[in-house]
Amino acid sequence: MNRRIYLDHAATCFPKSAVVLDAMHAFSVREEAAAGRGAYRASRNAGEIIARLRREIATWIGAASDQEISLHAGGTAALNAALLGILRPGDHVVTTAAEHNSVLRPLQHLVANQTVTWTVVPVDPHGQVDAADVIAAITPQTRMVSIVHAANVNGALQPVEAIGRRLHAQFADADKPLLMSDAAQTFGHVPLSVSQAHLDVLAAPGHKGGAGPLGTGFLYVRREVQDRIRPTVFGGTGTRSESLEMPHDYPASFEAGNMNVPAYAGWLAGLRDRCDGSSPPQALERSRTLMAELSSELYRGLESIPGVRMIGRPHAPVLPVASIAIDGLPASDVAMILDSEFGIEVRSGLHCAALIHGAIDSPSDGTVRISCAESTTTEELECLFNALAELCR
Amino acid sequence: MNRRIYLDHAATCFPKSAVVLDAMHAFSVREEAAAGRGAYRASRNAGEIIARLRREIATWIGAASDQEISLHAGGTAALNAALLGILRPGDHVVTTAAEHNSVLRPLQHLVANQTVTWTVVPVDPHGQVDAADVIAAITPQTRMVSIVHAANVNGALQPVEAIGRRLHAQFADADKPLLMSDAAQTFGHVPLSVSQAHLDVLAAPGHKGGAGPLGTGFLYVRREVQDRIRPTVFGGTGTRSESLEMPHDYPASFEAGNMNVPAYAGWLAGLRDRCDGSSPPQALERSRTLMAELSSELYRGLESIPGVRMIGRPHAPVLPVASIAIDGLPASDVAMILDSEFGIEVRSGLHCAALIHGAIDSPSDGTVRISCAESTTTEELECLFNALAELCR
Repeated sequence: MNRRIYLDHAATCFPKSAVVLDAMHAFSVREEAAAGRGAYRASRNAGEIIARLRREIATWIGAASDQEISLHAGGTAALNAALLGILRPGDHVVTTAAEHNSVLRPLQHLVANQTVTWTVVPVDPHGQVDAADVIAAITPQTRMVSIVHAANVNGALQPVEAIGRRLHAQFADADKPLLMSDAAQTFGHVPLSVSQAHLDVLAAPGHKGGAGPLGTGFLYVRREVQDRIRPTVFGGTGTRSESLEMPHDYPASFEAGNMNVPAYAGWLAGLRDRCDGSSPPQALERSRTLMAELSSELYRGLESIPGVRMIGRPHAPVLPVASIAIDGLPASDVAMILDSEFGIEVRSGLHCAALIHGAIDSPSDGTVRISCAESTTTEELECLFNALAELCR
Repeated sequence: MNRRIYLDHAATCFPKSAVVLDAMHAFSVREEAAAGRGAYRASRNAGEIIARLRREIATWIGAASDQEISLHAGGTAALNAALLGILRPGDHVVTTAAEHNSVLRPLQHLVANQTVTWTVVPVDPHGQVDAADVIAAITPQTRMVSIVHAANVNGALQPVEAIGRRLHAQFADADKPLLMSDAAQTFGHVPLSVSQAHLDVLAAPGHKGGAGPLGTGFLYVRREVQDRIRPTVFGGTGTRSESLEMPHDYPASFEAGNMNVPAYAGWLAGLRDRCDGSSPPQALERSRTLMAELSSELYRGLESIPGVRMIGRPHAPVLPVASIAIDGLPASDVAMILDSEFGIEVRSGLHCAALIHGAIDSPSDGTVRISCAESTTTEELECLFNALAELCR
């Protein structure tokens, strides 16, 4: 395969760093064992990798304790664990039209079963929700407010911190609807502190900004609200094996089955490598700056090409993710031609987001989404701009 | 780390073959992309790996179609998808005391919620259930019969085929309780054909006998009963993104979220490599013979050591998995000493199986479990026997 110009980082980052792949390989070759609390050294060592990864993630998101982090096979698994584990019959949920289907579809399942009711707060033509609209949608039955940190279709950052501060100011902790965020597009790319944003629940995959491999994700549940979430996946935990019930203590209660330790070893190495001797907050600040620069470069370049129509251009882009359309060319054709003739990989369609497209005026066949990561170069973006200019000619 | 004598293959096989690790690495370095139906070549290629893996697994289990196989992050995820996706309020389930907690705990969750009722058929002192007892436990409300193919504590093979034949003979297809088997300990080690056993549902991880890496598993659902199972995990599928509902077609309906394509690429390579030019049925026959020989060697050796007490010795061992106790030495001490003084890795305790221990008369702190795979050598077993003999002296 020739050199790829990969601009589909919002789906999964590529390439994974050699540090990640080497750590996975080394673990698999030398140290592999099922994580366990005793038995033998390799098994305890696998358990120690899990423990270190929990501590590492806690530091990246500003969590008070590593015991607030459970590990999952991906962001979707973590979001399902949270939504289906928290919501009860009679509950009301406030969410937004900017959400990914990994939030909308679990909620729709509960709504269709007449278990919960929901309010989907609309977004503006830039794909952004208004914090005041979210607060206004809360009713006495609202158990949860679920806000994606950044829309995956256009990278629009949502006012999670503002909503968190308002909820914190307005409600006593016992009465406050739980605030959850899906940080699939932002974890590792831009800072989001659960303590500063007053988040109760946070979920993200490891394989996008998190520098980890596919097959990884985490869920954060604030210690004080852990008694409000119940497991939805059941199985062996290596603890209390005599009991037919899952252990009651988070995070063990949410980690049934053999854990994917090689992948977690890779993820841990990836996060450590990203710090490069500094702290996670410092690494996140560096990344935030880089992503902002890439965003400017991407949007400036795209907007300078006659014939490229921006779809749902964010008010102030902070993530190098953009949706575009070219009049007269179906989105899938644009993606196909960019790939086959220019070696540029982008995604076309609705991007697993059912509700945002009406607001941002997407064509009926969806958009062409371009998404970058810290590794994206100016040369790659120049290739993209030149190819699009040629397509529009 | 010194050379390990790894005898914990029932937890996860070690080492994974170089073919598996190389395939994962090669995919991650060169081809990685989120699986998708279009967009660009690498993404379609990822989708093609998924399709090929489905076909491969279908051949290993004698399934009629690759569209009867959904891919999951492990055996536990697959079992949860099946149990929670099939059972409805008012249903009755027949299962056995030989099951792993990955079956017992999802069922107990439904029982505790007063959603379903269950009958747990006891096992004999050898850890084996009687097919006639299982059939006798069926009531008009029985929606499912769930039988582990082999108990993970002592390797006792259960009469899945006999139960399948009896159900098939006794019931019309529309009235028949669904027959499910958890093949965690047998998939890839010994043959189990869903058509010959008249199985409706089968689940297994990829990382034990399946020659795959951790983070993999599959669920088989027979085409004719796919309308009786509903998704329990919801999210993006890359298809019908405009819909808030999951697609209705199996297996897509059971595969929400980004799929772990590098792991699946490794699994596919592992299964192909196991065939070594022959067919999966031939590979399974070779493995069955090897496992039977190892079983004889393991049981003969253990039974020749004065002081080693066999726990739940199967009637006729076909898997090289054994539980033992040494009077006066706690199981965890035996495992610890074997590891620290002899470099032999075995597991101690209850092995995530809540209900079998009473029947097989395990000590209250559980058993020492020794479990082999095709790669286990006579030399490794000799080391084990010598170490145990020394411990018993």
